[in-house]
Amino acid sequence: MNAYVYGYGPAGKERLIVVDLGVTFPDMDSSPGVDLIMADLAWLEDNADRIEAIFITHAHEDHIGALAHVWNKLRKPVFARAFTGRIGQLKLEEAGIPAETIQIVEPRPHAIDAGPFTVQFVPVSHSIPESSALVIDTPAGRIVHTGDFKLDGNPIVGEPFDPILWHEIAQEGEGVKVLVSDSTNVFSPAPGRSEATLAEPLTKLIAEQTGMIVATTFASNVARLKTLAEAGVAAGRSVCLLGRAMKRMVGAAQETGVLKGMPGTIPPEEAMDVPRGNLMLIVTGSQGERRAASAQLSRGKYLGLEMKEGDSFLFSSKTIPGNERGVIRIMNAYSEMGVDVIDDHDGLYHVSGHANRPDLEAVHDLLRPKILIPMHGEHRHLREHAKIAQAKGIASEVATNGSMIDLTGTVPKVVEYIEAGRTYIDGSVKIGAMDGVVRGRIRMALNGLVLVTVILDEQDQPLGDPWVQTMGLPKQGRGGAILIDQIEDEMSDFLNRAPAKVLSNDEKMDEALRRIARQVSMEEIGKKPEVIVVTSRLVDE
Amino acid sequence: MNAYVYGYGPAGKERLIVVDLGVTFPDMDSSPGVDLIMADLAWLEDNADRIEAIFITHAHEDHIGALAHVWNKLRKPVFARAFTGRIGQLKLEEAGIPAETIQIVEPRPHAIDAGPFTVQFVPVSHSIPESSALVIDTPAGRIVHTGDFKLDGNPIVGEPFDPILWHEIAQEGEGVKVLVSDSTNVFSPAPGRSEATLAEPLTKLIAEQTGMIVATTFASNVARLKTLAEAGVAAGRSVCLLGRAMKRMVGAAQETGVLKGMPGTIPPEEAMDVPRGNLMLIVTGSQGERRAASAQLSRGKYLGLEMKEGDSFLFSSKTIPGNERGVIRIMNAYSEMGVDVIDDHDGLYHVSGHANRPDLEAVHDLLRPKILIPMHGEHRHLREHAKIAQAKGIASEVATNGSMIDLTGTVPKVVEYIEAGRTYIDGSVKIGAMDGVVRGRIRMALNGLVLVTVILDEQDQPLGDPWVQTMGLPKQGRGGAILIDQIEDEMSDFLNRAPAKVLSNDEKMDEALRRIARQVSMEEIGKKPEVIVVTSRLVDE
Repeated sequence: MNAYVYGYGPAGKERLIVVDLGVTFPDMDSSPGVDLIMADLAWLEDNADRIEAIFITHAHEDHIGALAHVWNKLRKPVFARAFTGRIGQLKLEEAGIPAETIQIVEPRPHAIDAGPFTVQFVPVSHSIPESSALVIDTPAGRIVHTGDFKLDGNPIVGEPFDPILWHEIAQEGEGVKVLVSDSTNVFSPAPGRSEATLAEPLTKLIAEQTGMIVATTFASNVARLKTLAEAGVAAGRSVCLLGRAMKRMVGAAQETGVLKGMPGTIPPEEAMDVPRGNLMLIVTGSQGERRAASAQLSRGKYLGLEMKEGDSFLFSSKTIPGNERGVIRIMNAYSEMGVDVIDDHDGLYHVSGHANRPDLEAVHDLLRPKILIPMHGEHRHLREHAKIAQAKGIASEVATNGSMIDLTGTVPKVVEYIEAGRTYIDGSVKIGAMDGVVRGRIRMALNGLVLVTVILDEQDQPLGDPWVQTMGLPKQGRGGAILIDQIEDEMSDFLNRAPAKVLSNDEKMDEALRRIARQVSMEEIGKKPEVIVVTSRLVDE
Repeated sequence: MNAYVYGYGPAGKERLIVVDLGVTFPDMDSSPGVDLIMADLAWLEDNADRIEAIFITHAHEDHIGALAHVWNKLRKPVFARAFTGRIGQLKLEEAGIPAETIQIVEPRPHAIDAGPFTVQFVPVSHSIPESSALVIDTPAGRIVHTGDFKLDGNPIVGEPFDPILWHEIAQEGEGVKVLVSDSTNVFSPAPGRSEATLAEPLTKLIAEQTGMIVATTFASNVARLKTLAEAGVAAGRSVCLLGRAMKRMVGAAQETGVLKGMPGTIPPEEAMDVPRGNLMLIVTGSQGERRAASAQLSRGKYLGLEMKEGDSFLFSSKTIPGNERGVIRIMNAYSEMGVDVIDDHDGLYHVSGHANRPDLEAVHDLLRPKILIPMHGEHRHLREHAKIAQAKGIASEVATNGSMIDLTGTVPKVVEYIEAGRTYIDGSVKIGAMDGVVRGRIRMALNGLVLVTVILDEQDQPLGDPWVQTMGLPKQGRGGAILIDQIEDEMSDFLNRAPAKVLSNDEKMDEALRRIARQVSMEEIGKKPEVIVVTSRLVDE
């Protein structure tokens, strides 16, 4: 969930530009029920009047996904290149925000003036078309913000990485003061491979299959979609794209002219009539997402199409850490159908979109920055990247979430920490990660719930017996006794004995009944559940 | 959660032996709040009078973990070798079952008679001492049940894999009719490497560190503990073992004589006084377990010991798929402390305990079975293993959980499916995976909870207003209105308008109030929560 802010001006009055507004995805462990996670942008919203503009480097969700959710609180012009802008505009329109909010800009040498900043978009190669670095010129020197990138001389779709262009950027004026660089693959020791290396093995693999072949990759990896489709056509197959994101990405890439020569595809209705050996599906869901086409096909029919024994399923992708369970579930479901599952074979059928360690070092050497700030990675990636830079004599500092760093000196200096947690989009509402809402859900999931209802009359005397219900707890304890009955009995005993000063006091009643529910549960089922006590008191009318 | 049953005799009256009784571990996605998962052994419990004996191949939790939880329902003699038996006895004693229940047996040529079966334990190498294959002779032929194994000529602790012994087993009598074989690493194309290959790189690595070094691996990998400790001592370090499981495993290995020559270790109290550069800790928690020593150290002090900048943390282990999040969390916590995290470096500092594809094929060739039944792996592993066997002309069949296979013919034949789901150990109670208990927890975690209390008087008229509480839901909706107030208002309106036939009918009331809670929630917060309605009726006394 990327969100970077650059500022220039007197302390506390800096004029600001924002680079990227992304999301990340929830998981059951830490954010059950949540729809999307973004950075807590309260500081940015409070200082919206100081923002000059918002720049989006590329259309991956972790860079653009929050834009439509927060733009109304920022209301500043957004700049992006054509493909990124088109994807962004579709998102804004869905949120009822005019598409024109995003201004489509040409790459360098075109420059956008934004207060004290002048910003150029510089094409870089990545796993999505038209990813861009930003060259940000300020009165204090030049910053190069790489965005997500790899060094690819032949990325199939979009511009190749151009070392001459980068050499120029390093030579102009005083050169590069600060490099803010992608760190994702800093632990990968070999140079990265080009997207173009995949065409041959993929074409060979697909030609060898006899049944239907289904391939999945990230929908935004338009170059891969093209390579896969071409491999399918070369093997005499009709190609059908499945999944909403797939169609949106290919559509936007074709409309904006970044994707040319994509083989024609057929709709699912037609695909049903094509013999299996002549059909290839390209589907969403490479990360095992439950609702995506790959998962739906693993559970049975999807849009009339169905996998069968003798078919093959190709993951032209790598599983992002944390998504293993979902992916493995799908692999085994296919195995049970008799479908051959083919993974990336250690990179034979997939390449990463990020620069590996030698590639990162090549960029250090090309740009010769005074300062390097690692970005885009876990703490261990950032730390490793900073160590590499420092070993070369480049000043470097790990910027954890919320750090404000002074880049005007010869060494970077953390000058302030901004409150920067996580905001959850939950249904139609935004909630703070620390609000306790999600903590309540996790506690119910781990401990189960006991619900106690007690009615007291006008004299604070119990009216009938307490009423207990449970959710997420076993009905019977170890000894076979009914848990609810045991709790109710214990509570009745307590209410019959309880002195008036307890019965008349909501807080004491709550505490006592809660303690009984937990104690009895512990004895009967060995768990201390969450407890909600509702004490209703009748009043004289 | 391994549990295998072999039977011989007239259909429905076969005498049975059980091989292994293991557990698996819960996760938040599918089994929140659960403590342990084991196979549903209802069929085995119903047929306990037909069981002759239980054999445990080795002391990994997925093979022995359920024994103490189910033995009381089976009550049959248990056989294991010394180290496995010792670990099992400790578990039984904790559950109040006499240690003597487990009979310690010598390996082949010693044989145990169990009804129509004669069983020999055959030493194999694995990532725990004294792992065993079983040679099971029946009137219908010889079965070799490999258990978990690898081909290791020098496993450091325990016996090496002995091809001559296996050749003998294949040559005796009619040879091997059925091979039931480990399939875990069937997708690993290169031959497996010996535990002994790790000593040199580990010794070099540890000698290079300057601060304190902390290493983690599975506590049961006693050979690795020894190699790590020896590397520490060689580097002039005092070695301290941290974590309960670590001490239990080393203790049992020393008591039973399988571990000899383990360097002396120091207790944590002494470790506190050793200079960091002269200290090595070996700790539990290689899979990121929240309560293990590795996680505790990543959060701060543990038993007076603390990691600091300049220290190193070594994962001499591989992350099991599904555990990535926990492991990554620890890695980043250490990175924030300035601790260098060292992973297995693609096998330089860790080897697997399972046979790779060429090793599995070597065993096929050594034993020349008529039938191969793949075991120990996901469906895709079993399927791949069966395909390899079939390609060599060995009859094979994938046995999914619960399949009963007739092995007496020339080809294996599934003759019955036994009900074989999962049983959860939840607190002190066993619950079925399909009982709905855990489903309730998951639904509360995903959807949050609304709780409605309504009191009706003797004439079925509402007494006061309905009372709503929530858990796991945001307080305010999109427009800023309080969710609880909105639901209560809507319910009050409904109750004021509701006809007598609704007010007097618990089911109709429940349905109507539930619908209101869900509709208002959907409008206000965009979620449909779980709803519990408690309608209390006052009665004439």
